Amino acid sequence: MTYCVGLKINKGLVFMSDTRTNAGVDNVSTFRKMRCWTKADERVMVLLSAGNLATTQAVVSLLDERTKAPDERTLSMLETPSMYQAARLVGDTVKEVIRQSAPVGQNADAFGASFVLGGQIRGMEPRLFLIYPEGNFIEAGEDTPFFQIGETKYGKPILVRAYDPAMSFEETIKLLLVSFDSTLKSNLSVGLPLDLLFYERDSFRIGYEKRIDQDDAYFRTISDGWSSALKTAFKSLPDFSR
Amino acid sequence: MTYCVGLKINKGLVFMSDTRTNAGVDNVSTFRKMRCWTKADERVMVLLSAGNLATTQAVVSLLDERTKAPDERTLSMLETPSMYQAARLVGDTVKEVIRQSAPVGQNADAFGASFVLGGQIRGMEPRLFLIYPEGNFIEAGEDTPFFQIGETKYGKPILVRAYDPAMSFEETIKLLLVSFDSTLKSNLSVGLPLDLLFYERDSFRIGYEKRIDQDDAYFRTISDGWSSALKTAFKSLPDFSR
Repeated sequence: MTYCVGLKINKGLVFMSDTRTNAGVDNVSTFRKMRCWTKADERVMVLLSAGNLATTQAVVSLLDERTKAPDERTLSMLETPSMYQAARLVGDTVKEVIRQSAPVGQNADAFGASFVLGGQIRGMEPRLFLIYPEGNFIEAGEDTPFFQIGETKYGKPILVRAYDPAMSFEETIKLLLVSFDSTLKSNLSVGLPLDLLFYERDSFRIGYEKRIDQDDAYFRTISDGWSSALKTAFKSLPDFSR
Repeated sequence: MTYCVGLKINKGLVFMSDTRTNAGVDNVSTFRKMRCWTKADERVMVLLSAGNLATTQAVVSLLDERTKAPDERTLSMLETPSMYQAARLVGDTVKEVIRQSAPVGQNADAFGASFVLGGQIRGMEPRLFLIYPEGNFIEAGEDTPFFQIGETKYGKPILVRAYDPAMSFEETIKLLLVSFDSTLKSNLSVGLPLDLLFYERDSFRIGYEKRIDQDDAYFRTISDGWSSALKTAFKSLPDFSR
């Protein structure tokens, strides 16, 4: 599996993804699940992917090829007039890839992949989309300001409880690391290193990008600190009494 | 779905289960998923169930009928010489029920059910088992002192982090309520009221039993308190800095 989160705050967008892929437990590899397309001072787009690695790589390759060959008649990620059209392009590409894989007779579910796409194009608001394996998609709103894909359940409770649209990038990264740490501790199919990226609204360039591995001092602080902070929080509640 | 946890501490066994069952989102009902068999001063057995309601009810009914008709040649829950044999009896009954459902042509997976069985028989240690839909089972040990069935992921991180075998019953109930509250807040298919039971080692009677509903004062304290305690814990960690 995989764990990726795209999150919208007032200040912009924050993305985090793990890098573990596995086919069974004895075929484990590290692959980047976060891709960016940028056009200086005009647009930034970030794509997170979960699901069948062949499908997600094919989708990204097709999107990339189109981006590199602007003479093609299909629009590329760098030319879509809006984020909505970019989400449609990703959705159509997923459908195309899955359709090509399906006829060999295997279950189409096995080729499934989900994506989170976020970004901003000059003159428009930052937007965040979740694209389903079927190629259709939904957009984040005020009530649902983040999307998770992959192994989403372990890390959801803290996101639900601590998210606040007024958070700073620094706090949001802390929140995501706590959510990822809970998932890493509970599920073998999600693994370090993590990729982190944030985009500041109206900046039209990537704000900050980092790969966080086992030795990252801040990650260690959060991982160890959260265990003891949780225990303290737990102790602060009154015990049950009959 | 469902969420049930059976947990082993030095002092004994603690069980908690929700009561929501659903077939689709518009067919929601409340059913008890916790059953007990007791023989005063000799044995206590508690069974938690998750999965297809027809299967779990059939299993419990068969176990109950055998318990009520001791002349039958098959052993009943009140006669098994050990907890291991009781787990085998549950496992064999699950296999029997699923075998009877399967021939109608539907997917056997749809009839699946899992069980947590815990208890103690005089002269032996308290034991805790997880019984799979296939009828085989595993036993809790020092390294894996609890079993969850149903919608297990949301509530796992706090169990992993805060469990301690030396906990009191009062702390253990608090831990389970936090784990259930996280699940309730994240997943619609798990619902109040909750059933709670604890068994004190070598007592050979149920120590305490309670149904916890929306208005339960302690549940409200934990649910509200945990949200703010989590936020405080989260704030206590240092923010990310570049």
